[in-house]
Amino acid sequence: MSIQHTVVFRLIHPAGSAEEREFLATGHAVLTSIPGVEDFTIRRQVSAKSDLSHQFSMVFADRHAYAAYDRHPVHRAFVSERWVPEVAEFQEYDFVE
Amino acid sequence: MSIQHTVVFRLIHPAGSAEEREFLATGHAVLTSIPGVEDFTIRRQVSAKSDLSHQFSMVFADRHAYAAYDRHPVHRAFVSERWVPEVAEFQEYDFVE
Repeated sequence: MSIQHTVVFRLIHPAGSAEEREFLATGHAVLTSIPGVEDFTIRRQVSAKSDLSHQFSMVFADRHAYAAYDRHPVHRAFVSERWVPEVAEFQEYDFVE
Repeated sequence: MSIQHTVVFRLIHPAGSAEEREFLATGHAVLTSIPGVEDFTIRRQVSAKSDLSHQFSMVFADRHAYAAYDRHPVHRAFVSERWVPEVAEFQEYDFVE
C-alpha cells in the first residue's frame, strides 16, 4: 500500500528570499536523489488558517521503502544540516487510501 | 490557478465505529454534491507524529470556485450540523503549485 509522506513547514528565511529559493531547490535535489522517493512536489500553503508556508510531498511504494528513506544517510544529513537549522515550524502527515 | 483545499482532522467517534463510517460517507456524499468540488478524496493519516486521523481533500479550479463552495448553503449546513459537533480537532491547509 503506497504512502504519501508530507511535511508542511515554515522557514526562518523571508518569503521570496534567495535563502528560501536555495533551500527549496536543494531540498528538491537532495531528497529526490534518495531511492524510493516518487512524485516529489513542493507547493505553497496559502490558507490564512495556518502560518505554515510550504509543503514537501513524496510517495513511497510501501512502508519498507519509506523506512529505507527515513534511515538513508542523505536524508539524515539533510535533516541535521539544513532542516533543523532553517525550519522554524513544521507538521508531518502521512496519508494512505 | 487550481487550489487543493485540505483538512486533516480527528473525530469524536472511536476509530472503526459505525459513527465514523457514517460521518465519512455523509461527508463524501454531501461535499461532492457542491458545484466546483473536484477530485474529492478521504484518506487516513497514519504518522505517529500527528494525532489527527483523516484527511478530506478537494481541488478547485480557481479561487472563485473555492469561494463559491465556502459560502454554499450545503457546505455551511454540513459545517454547523456535522463538522462542529463531531470533529474534535482539525487543521486546514490549501496548496498551490
